[in-house]
Amino acid sequence: MSNPTAAMLVIGDEILSGRTRDSNMHHLAKELTGRGIRLLEARVVADDHAAIVAAVRALSAAHDHVFTSGGIGPTHDDITADAVAEAMGATIDVREDARALLVAHYQRTGLELNAMRLRMARIPKGATLIDNPISAAPGFSLGNVHVMAGVPAIFETMLASLLPTLSGGEPLLSQMIDVQRGEGEIAEALAELAARYGDLSFGSYPWTRNGVYGTQLVVRGTNAARIDAAMVELAQIAGAA
Amino acid sequence: MSNPTAAMLVIGDEILSGRTRDSNMHHLAKELTGRGIRLLEARVVADDHAAIVAAVRALSAAHDHVFTSGGIGPTHDDITADAVAEAMGATIDVREDARALLVAHYQRTGLELNAMRLRMARIPKGATLIDNPISAAPGFSLGNVHVMAGVPAIFETMLASLLPTLSGGEPLLSQMIDVQRGEGEIAEALAELAARYGDLSFGSYPWTRNGVYGTQLVVRGTNAARIDAAMVELAQIAGAA
Repeated sequence: MSNPTAAMLVIGDEILSGRTRDSNMHHLAKELTGRGIRLLEARVVADDHAAIVAAVRALSAAHDHVFTSGGIGPTHDDITADAVAEAMGATIDVREDARALLVAHYQRTGLELNAMRLRMARIPKGATLIDNPISAAPGFSLGNVHVMAGVPAIFETMLASLLPTLSGGEPLLSQMIDVQRGEGEIAEALAELAARYGDLSFGSYPWTRNGVYGTQLVVRGTNAARIDAAMVELAQIAGAA
Repeated sequence: MSNPTAAMLVIGDEILSGRTRDSNMHHLAKELTGRGIRLLEARVVADDHAAIVAAVRALSAAHDHVFTSGGIGPTHDDITADAVAEAMGATIDVREDARALLVAHYQRTGLELNAMRLRMARIPKGATLIDNPISAAPGFSLGNVHVMAGVPAIFETMLASLLPTLSGGEPLLSQMIDVQRGEGEIAEALAELAARYGDLSFGSYPWTRNGVYGTQLVVRGTNAARIDAAMVELAQIAGAA
């Protein structure tokens, strides 16, 4: 498949310590699949400058797009913007367009735009801002790296405004069938089918419900007719004694 | 901190396509934190041999422990065991101790131990088996890489039997305080505090509830007395006008 590829980088000690359960990865995965962008890898790193720089460099070189979440708030451990700038070889400073967004927001809310909050206007040179209608502090795209907030509501809003600006691919389609047979009973026939349909990907996921066991079979690809043909064969495999 | 470090590797197209929401990472994070093992990195890769080999090599070299989940069932896309063997320079074949576990399980359940199911007895030479009381197919530890199932109930059971065999560190303690002040209002004082308590880590997490906003402040470390001292200062910062 010639669809664009992507990676995600989640930044946050709170995920790795188990304090917080990440939900942005699952949201991004679904959104990208719907747009025909293939998420091939995801990483979670701590609030650590060197770890973020290394991950951004590796993922940016290997994929068409990198989406990050987390680490762009006002506190001392929010170091994503500076780390991304370094990874991409850009300078970074408070930028006037971002400062103007914060000034307007804090005037509206009556809160003080102090020095720490002003850190959220630090944007790498050459980056394009990503709108944040919830709390004003913008995300940004620098090269193929898209930097967004970790708070799920803000991440999802930023992603919604970003995605239409990216080139997608043929939509990734999928069909599934639930069969009341063990994964191991149909594995050989499934492998044979997968070999003949090399343009599709096949997944099998065992389940048990109230003592009944079975397998969900999923076929993914971009060619609807081929998926249909594979599903017909799958139904025969599933029905065979 | 001299606590052991760890990484997680989640293997599965179904996570990256958005079909399934991973829960093993969050479970592992909590369990490791409780035992004083620091989870510093996590990755999710597709059911792709080269991607698994590369990730296992990188993570195994960088951390004291690597925990994997997924890709050890009976189907053609369950390639974790072979990829881990290659990454660690071990040979792999059906091993008699693992085969015996499967034979007993399938005799008990009356199902057929066919060729595909027998693939689950492929265990790298030199590996130690990890017990699977739910569906028999074992996980294994090879060097510092611990290979477990992706089904959450089985992953959690395998981890429970594995963890007591690993050396932990001083337990990672944490305390938290909820303040009804914006993250940006206390960020400067928090940064100053974090600089004086370099042996602890400080996190701040904004929240809003019913239109009220505030920040949860979390202090983590291994020295309870130092955490107590930092919490006293944090309470003063939080209370200051």
